[in-house]
Amino acid sequence: MKPFMDENFLLSTDTAKTLYHTCAENLPILDYHCHVSPREIAENRTFSNIAEVWLGGDHYKWRAMRSCGVDERYITGDAADYEKFLAYATVMPKLIGNPLYHWSHLELKRYFDCDLPLSASTADEIWAITGEKLASHDFSVHGILKKSNVEALCTTDDPIDSLEYHRAIKASDLETDVYPAFRPDKGLNCNRKGYTAYIASLAKAAGMKIASLADLKDAYAKRIAFFNENGCRTADHGIDEQIPFAPDATENDVDAIFRAALASDGNVTVADADRFRTYMLRFFGAEYKKYGWIMQIHFGPLRNVNKAAFRVLGPDSGYDVIGGRSSITELAGLLDFLRRSDSLPKTIVYSINPADNAPLAALIGAFQERGEDGLPTLYQGSAWWFNDHIHGMREQLTVYAADSALGFFPGMLTDSRSFLSYPRHEYFRRILCDLVGGWAEDGQIPLDWEMLGDLVSDISYCNVKNLFHI
Amino acid sequence: MKPFMDENFLLSTDTAKTLYHTCAENLPILDYHCHVSPREIAENRTFSNIAEVWLGGDHYKWRAMRSCGVDERYITGDAADYEKFLAYATVMPKLIGNPLYHWSHLELKRYFDCDLPLSASTADEIWAITGEKLASHDFSVHGILKKSNVEALCTTDDPIDSLEYHRAIKASDLETDVYPAFRPDKGLNCNRKGYTAYIASLAKAAGMKIASLADLKDAYAKRIAFFNENGCRTADHGIDEQIPFAPDATENDVDAIFRAALASDGNVTVADADRFRTYMLRFFGAEYKKYGWIMQIHFGPLRNVNKAAFRVLGPDSGYDVIGGRSSITELAGLLDFLRRSDSLPKTIVYSINPADNAPLAALIGAFQERGEDGLPTLYQGSAWWFNDHIHGMREQLTVYAADSALGFFPGMLTDSRSFLSYPRHEYFRRILCDLVGGWAEDGQIPLDWEMLGDLVSDISYCNVKNLFHI
Amino acid sequence: MKPFMDENFLLSTDTAKTLYHTCAENLPILDYHCHVSPREIAENRTFSNIAEVWLGGDHYKWRAMRSCGVDERYITGDAADYEKFLAYATVMPKLIGNPLYHWSHLELKRYFDCDLPLSASTADEIWAITGEKLASHDFSVHGILKKSNVEALCTTDDPIDSLEYHRAIKASDLETDVYPAFRPDKGLNCNRKGYTAYIASLAKAAGMKIASLADLKDAYAKRIAFFNENGCRTADHGIDEQIPFAPDATENDVDAIFRAALASDGNVTVADADRFRTYMLRFFGAEYKKYGWIMQIHFGPLRNVNKAAFRVLGPDSGYDVIGGRSSITELAGLLDFLRRSDSLPKTIVYSINPADNAPLAALIGAFQERGEDGLPTLYQGSAWWFNDHIHGMREQLTVYAADSALGFFPGMLTDSRSFLSYPRHEYFRRILCDLVGGWAEDGQIPLDWEMLGDLVSDISYCNVKNLFHI
Repeated sequence: MKPFMDENFLLSTDTAKTLYHTCAENLPILDYHCHVSPREIAENRTFSNIAEVWLGGDHYKWRAMRSCGVDERYITGDAADYEKFLAYATVMPKLIGNPLYHWSHLELKRYFDCDLPLSASTADEIWAITGEKLASHDFSVHGILKKSNVEALCTTDDPIDSLEYHRAIKASDLETDVYPAFRPDKGLNCNRKGYTAYIASLAKAAGMKIASLADLKDAYAKRIAFFNENGCRTADHGIDEQIPFAPDATENDVDAIFRAALASDGNVTVADADRFRTYMLRFFGAEYKKYGWIMQIHFGPLRNVNKAAFRVLGPDSGYDVIGGRSSITELAGLLDFLRRSDSLPKTIVYSINPADNAPLAALIGAFQERGEDGLPTLYQGSAWWFNDHIHGMREQLTVYAADSALGFFPGMLTDSRSFLSYPRHEYFRRILCDLVGGWAEDGQIPLDWEMLGDLVSDISYCNVKNLFHI
Repeated sequence: MKPFMDENFLLSTDTAKTLYHTCAENLPILDYHCHVSPREIAENRTFSNIAEVWLGGDHYKWRAMRSCGVDERYITGDAADYEKFLAYATVMPKLIGNPLYHWSHLELKRYFDCDLPLSASTADEIWAITGEKLASHDFSVHGILKKSNVEALCTTDDPIDSLEYHRAIKASDLETDVYPAFRPDKGLNCNRKGYTAYIASLAKAAGMKIASLADLKDAYAKRIAFFNENGCRTADHGIDEQIPFAPDATENDVDAIFRAALASDGNVTVADADRFRTYMLRFFGAEYKKYGWIMQIHFGPLRNVNKAAFRVLGPDSGYDVIGGRSSITELAGLLDFLRRSDSLPKTIVYSINPADNAPLAALIGAFQERGEDGLPTLYQGSAWWFNDHIHGMREQLTVYAADSALGFFPGMLTDSRSFLSYPRHEYFRRILCDLVGGWAEDGQIPLDWEMLGDLVSDISYCNVKNLFHI
Repeated sequence: MKPFMDENFLLSTDTAKTLYHTCAENLPILDYHCHVSPREIAENRTFSNIAEVWLGGDHYKWRAMRSCGVDERYITGDAADYEKFLAYATVMPKLIGNPLYHWSHLELKRYFDCDLPLSASTADEIWAITGEKLASHDFSVHGILKKSNVEALCTTDDPIDSLEYHRAIKASDLETDVYPAFRPDKGLNCNRKGYTAYIASLAKAAGMKIASLADLKDAYAKRIAFFNENGCRTADHGIDEQIPFAPDATENDVDAIFRAALASDGNVTVADADRFRTYMLRFFGAEYKKYGWIMQIHFGPLRNVNKAAFRVLGPDSGYDVIGGRSSITELAGLLDFLRRSDSLPKTIVYSINPADNAPLAALIGAFQERGEDGLPTLYQGSAWWFNDHIHGMREQLTVYAADSALGFFPGMLTDSRSFLSYPRHEYFRRILCDLVGGWAEDGQIPLDWEMLGDLVSDISYCNVKNLFHI
């Protein structure tokens, strides 16, 4: 019987414990994909109370509360902060087995030295403990990043972003390196309302007019150069539902599609939009490759499926789900299309559907080769979003190891909007050490401390350091 | 080394054992979806021998025997009952790892106090033991339901059913509450032969003529009211292959499709049938919501794929399989379509494909909200049909917990045609207690007996009680 | 703590150890599907060094090296054999969790009595040890087959093959029975360039002209008879991407499609090619059934997805991946189409996508019946290709047991091009014994040594012996 979430949480063998405590635990964090606000970092935001940190914008928690039948008033509504926190604390026992259960308790332990299990009966005490700590200077964003041992993080930024906050952060005495990341989704979705206005903003940001495909590429090339000057090392593409793959269009076709989209504010067919996206992904791939950036592709979610709720709360409010249709054929086509035109940069792919674990691990193997820096060029990223729980991460690591090379796995990222989410790296490292330590104790791999220690620290830290050059 | 299926079967930790034996074992059974015959309950059927109970209509066992190369004569053919039983007993050792292996032995233990492992060499003795018991008064259907501690069950009934047997049961001294459940599949499949005759029966049952869509809705509204008067709390929709989602038709369009189907005895296109079904599902959703019924949606099987065998034996003979095509996009569309018109009742969805576990758990989260009774409105049901084995149930519970709220899980149901199938609830409860107990012993959750006991008894019993108001 | 890969490797309980060492370990190997070269067997090939054996043609290892960023020069390029071996040894620690890690070490142990963990630091020593052994007479192909206890194996042969090497092998004193297997894929892909030339070769092999569908069937019937005379017991169909199912064409239609394909060298539509394939699969099924052959269907890979690499290295170089689209509906249709015309021989199906495990196990159950020899007629084969690792095989066996009859499972096959791959049977048997032994120790099944011993030896050996009559 192990105590609840003690120092050996998730570590079921002695080898796992040793690996974690000696090789993984104290490594800095490189959080190479997340959604924290650069502005809040620049302004060194502070938080009034635990409800503000936890429930201010975390749609994971909002969903979980809805799954428990909590009234929306206590989720995104006008209830007082304490009431919201109490509602969350009250349903916590219903969320056993949900990673939120572990994340919330890890956050209480690591940031607030609080070992109480969260529930209605401990809510008051925890409210008080966390409130007191949050009021202290240590609990500004800078304090949290320092306490979390975050060596570097990459935000997620629109190409039109001025990166003013990134420059302000760089000029500050924050020790964490904060890099922008280039996320051009809006400019790729040329079949949505608002497209013309968005391209106008992009034109303004690039300091030029955009009337043709050639202009669009020039503008993006300028913004990519600008992001690169500001330290950017990676771009991220969020692709809803299925990967587009329609490589049949000529440059002239795509120019015509783009002009039609501009003229009609996004009134083009899905097929034409896919032609445009396919073409542009190759353009972006070539640009990223030029700068040695890592391209990340997150694909598969169905977004905003509850339209009534979406209308009230907008995107990123907990109404995105896991799509069921495979994109493996399309992704294979797209990677090949990029590779054949020498436009395939180092790439990390993530699918939201765990059924893609084996197909993705196999697919990247068909495109992996030695990059200029001696590292493999393609990767599957860590279990994403709905899958970053114990079972999901363990299964993804197991299948990745079986069908690819675990030693080069690019490790964990929070993908989070919250500044208290860094214990997810600890969570991942514990699961990793338990898996590898378990194999060693079971005689599946040699108990070679140097080899295993290297493996664990590579996956926890060094691989990302080497890959992103951050 | 644990003895074969002793009192701690499937319980691998002390905490699991305590949870099961103190919190779950003795709770009554609420079997809210099954296929037992109301007539056999009303008539308090008895059974001549174990072959009649086990092999009279259970296509799970028929399939398993075919998987072992048993001649059809001993399955559905004219062999004597004893020969059929002997054939089943003989292949039992080949079925290790199949839930039938455990179910059969649990049934021998719980109903016949027989601990013998079933095989060719024990067949005679078991035939005698079970025969003797079955001859006793205790082994009528009423006796079995009492012995099984079944507090309530919901049968599966066509809207045209007179519910005469349900009224007879109610008038009897059976302590188990037996509710009808409304299953209108036949009226929704307007592109099948026999449709016109079926609608004629529905008209007769509703005491009106049905010539238009408006008539059809009136007739169904009457039958729903009638079912409700007779205690019905739930409707079930079995959707083969993919969920239909074609919301583009107007009321006039759907009226025309229905009239065409009536006039041609089901000679309408699949696309038109999907328009009709989508429209009608919204109609039914609104009706169910009005009465506070739970809508169940079972989707994904390919039915009767072996047409030669189907021609001989008809439906439900072991020739249905797991479809491979995802319906997640369509189900998301359908739930949204219902939700936007305020026609989404409390709903439990089941997919036959275990690859849907994560997508379904995520999807329901986009539509869960607080219902009028304070409970969440959407649920994924327990691992269904081909998946209700140890591995399948454990995986479904794990993923559900990770992506939803385990504490509100609506628990087990037999989905069975057999009156000896209630030990499947025991099977589920053991798996649940082992999972939760294992987490506690592993330090993943606090060893808080009240919290864990509540969780286990909620999932085993209370959640269904609260949700169905039965 | 278990030592690294000792005699109880993968056996975690005493029952598992006993089952493996007393019932499975010493059984001969029946490798009923593989890709070793009949010519190399006939010529009793020898090997100069371990690089030649391991890296000469094994695209599994090539992929793994690419996944580690190894330069192609050391994979398929002009580096010296020792350099290639050293490159492989160097990345081995990165491949922990990959079955190659275990296979490579099992091969070192079983064939070279070498217990050293392979890495850069042991590479020289292992190069020397293996080199010395390979120089001895024992390490010819015949020596390896004898040492591996291979009782029989089936190669994979084109219908145009003269089978001269098979006759030469039969005439030699090799104790292993080497059977040809009939693989007519090339003649089925009538929409590929080179089709006309291929059919010309087939005509030559059959000693007749082929100008019509009737001719084609005659020619194939001759070749099937010829293969049968030469001991063939099985045919294998490799179906890329999705299973074709287009049963709507008449014999005349298919004749026209075939003539058009011949006249245009494969310039027919995919839809027509699918009609042709569907028709021909029925023809083949009927022929195989006549001879009592086993039909194997391997489906689902996307082949040669990296076209740039394919152009350089050709097929089977590590650029095939797991397709994501389900073929379950099509396979259900195809099996029914064959069954209804009495053209469904004994069949083993394999999907490359592990998400098909449950659907396939369920699907075969709809077509299983008693064959003339008393055995069930349909089977799912062992976890294939990307899935034949511990997790993949364990999961496949578990799901197969739950949804079908484990006792009739047709066991392991190497599917390999390498003569050192036979320890994969050991790997499988250990996993099987661990699974079954674990169930017994956990009280899930009776500790009935005869029953469990039979189960394990049936799956390891007897089932294939009985099924293939080899």
